[in-house]
Amino acid sequence: MTTDLIVHPILYLYTDFGVGSLYVGQLHGIIAPHLPRIQTVDLCHELEPCKPRSAAYLLAALGPFLTVPAVVVGVVDPGVGTARAPILIRGEKLSLIGPDNGLFSQIVRQFPGRVYRLDAISARPLSASFHGRDLFVPWALRLLVDPESRPESDLEPFTQPIVGSDWPQQIQEVIHIDRYGNAITGWMGEEVNHNRSLRIGPHTLAYRTTFGEAVYGTAFWYVNSLGLVEIACNQKSASDALDIHVADLFVWL
Amino acid sequence: MTTDLIVHPILYLYTDFGVGSLYVGQLHGIIAPHLPRIQTVDLCHELEPCKPRSAAYLLAALGPFLTVPAVVVGVVDPGVGTARAPILIRGEKLSLIGPDNGLFSQIVRQFPGRVYRLDAISARPLSASFHGRDLFVPWALRLLVDPESRPESDLEPFTQPIVGSDWPQQIQEVIHIDRYGNAITGWMGEEVNHNRSLRIGPHTLAYRTTFGEAVYGTAFWYVNSLGLVEIACNQKSASDALDIHVADLFVWL
Amino acid sequence: MTTDLIVHPILYLYTDFGVGSLYVGQLHGIIAPHLPRIQTVDLCHELEPCKPRSAAYLLAALGPFLTVPAVVVGVVDPGVGTARAPILIRGEKLSLIGPDNGLFSQIVRQFPGRVYRLDAISARPLSASFHGRDLFVPWALRLLVDPESRPESDLEPFTQPIVGSDWPQQIQEVIHIDRYGNAITGWMGEEVNHNRSLRIGPHTLAYRTTFGEAVYGTAFWYVNSLGLVEIACNQKSASDALDIHVADLFVWL
Repeated sequence: MTTDLIVHPILYLYTDFGVGSLYVGQLHGIIAPHLPRIQTVDLCHELEPCKPRSAAYLLAALGPFLTVPAVVVGVVDPGVGTARAPILIRGEKLSLIGPDNGLFSQIVRQFPGRVYRLDAISARPLSASFHGRDLFVPWALRLLVDPESRPESDLEPFTQPIVGSDWPQQIQEVIHIDRYGNAITGWMGEEVNHNRSLRIGPHTLAYRTTFGEAVYGTAFWYVNSLGLVEIACNQKSASDALDIHVADLFVWL
Repeated sequence: MTTDLIVHPILYLYTDFGVGSLYVGQLHGIIAPHLPRIQTVDLCHELEPCKPRSAAYLLAALGPFLTVPAVVVGVVDPGVGTARAPILIRGEKLSLIGPDNGLFSQIVRQFPGRVYRLDAISARPLSASFHGRDLFVPWALRLLVDPESRPESDLEPFTQPIVGSDWPQQIQEVIHIDRYGNAITGWMGEEVNHNRSLRIGPHTLAYRTTFGEAVYGTAFWYVNSLGLVEIACNQKSASDALDIHVADLFVWL
Repeated sequence: MTTDLIVHPILYLYTDFGVGSLYVGQLHGIIAPHLPRIQTVDLCHELEPCKPRSAAYLLAALGPFLTVPAVVVGVVDPGVGTARAPILIRGEKLSLIGPDNGLFSQIVRQFPGRVYRLDAISARPLSASFHGRDLFVPWALRLLVDPESRPESDLEPFTQPIVGSDWPQQIQEVIHIDRYGNAITGWMGEEVNHNRSLRIGPHTLAYRTTFGEAVYGTAFWYVNSLGLVEIACNQKSASDALDIHVADLFVWL
């Protein structure tokens, strides 16, 4: 075996910053000196701004598709600089770093770990509004760069339950709108009977297997590639056509 | 020569997924363990959704600017989950992987190759709506990770002509709108007489060499950095000002 | 020390091209063969189109957060193909490559260097409208790939002052709108008395330490993570709510 065949651990970034933004750019700038010994992946930066609850259910659905071992740095805050504890959830295959605001409450069911409260890393002054740059990514690099190290041994265990540990495992809500205008929900599709209709606002939608089955412009629901119920229109934006937004509720008929 | 000087083969991604989206993120997650032995480049993820014909002409124009050897995974579908064959076009310098819906019909003139029908890769269940993750990128990795391997030897040759093999080499259509609102067309600029005017909708546009030559806010046509005819306004969005969209037709006067 | 511990020099890209665009994709395509011997970071691609003055003040604020040694290729032109000299500012820790239109006029105060006029690189024909691909990035690669080389020794020194060398060190203008709709200004926050109010258009805004302090939907000013004065609304877009755009002026009361 040559050094060429080593698999490098992955740092996933999961935020509402917007890709191509100066925020993501600053994160990559501090990560870059550690490449290629670690690899970094922009898992998603187009999360609905300021909705950690929605992002939590999407992250859980992405869980089975993550390449591990990895660290996820997640940042979605209801308002920048709002008070919440910065935490590390140190799991065997996946560690999670970010705010204790519910963002990790669902994925942690798949990747359990011990929870710690993060301390400021002294080399860098901590800004009030950019913990991603000043706290979360520096901690991720500490964990990743030397996989044998146990930097968490200096941290205080977080003894209270994390925010969202009492939230349900799935929710009848829209959690994400993608570039096509498809509305991803927080409901798992596997056990839903295909005869059921979904009602959202004034609209009642039937099931279709794929887009090709639906008449042009007709709205329908199907089970997407993450296993979640998704609302779509064939070749149109469901979000625009049905006036659907993140956090909108739906019911099964 | 040291290992440091090896040039790694490139995996280009060319989609309408939206960069920073969870779709692109999942692709990079399965590519990441193979870095830096291969390199990956987001060639474009902002293609007009669901328009493989437009994307085909843009890809052909990008052809001369690709770094080879490389594999392009391209995904633009008229509707997700619609029926079309998944294909591999195995060329000497450039291989193409994606749907047989015309997307590769124009670039293949520059980079010809033998066509195969792709089989599902058994290790991963095939979703109905995300062949990029479950089929196309896994096949690209097979081709790239061991350049001496010939994984296509197990595939069935695709004997019918690919979709779009009878399309013209250039089209009088808008094929892409960029962030500035410039409208790129599918017409090659090299042989167009600069005295000719271009008519699109109710607008008649004259030629200018560069933006600097045009009066503020005036629309004009010029030959862009890909060699294609492009419609622009100096310091304004031509798409907004002239109400131009992808797939709009134009004529030469 | 093993080769694994080498820190690779960084190539930052800073443009108004839009991330995920075919322009950024082409740049990464010509950079890719040089990875991982250099590393590349998309510092920002969502700059306000065609406003080099605004981008200059934002780049200066990003300066302290850049990882050096590095080269920044910056491209923001008032109009594509407009006449301006292509320059290299060769500093000890940071080199700057791009148009002489003011873009580097502010960051160069932190990272001074000798200025050269760039010549076309003969291997590649120079397009009128994409100097990033045909001139700036090829020059950056020359500087980065062999850190011992001095390719600038063949260049003509640029003897006139660069554009913007007489601009003030800070400006009472909005210089960037981010994905949240927050309006970043070109004014340094450090020495502003927190009792002062900021007036922009018909709106008068008071200071708040963080978003959490502000009432829902109320606009305020604070000092952001770059040290700049920023205008925000708690959980709303300040840009939309106050109708603020890049290059809008403000005054202190």
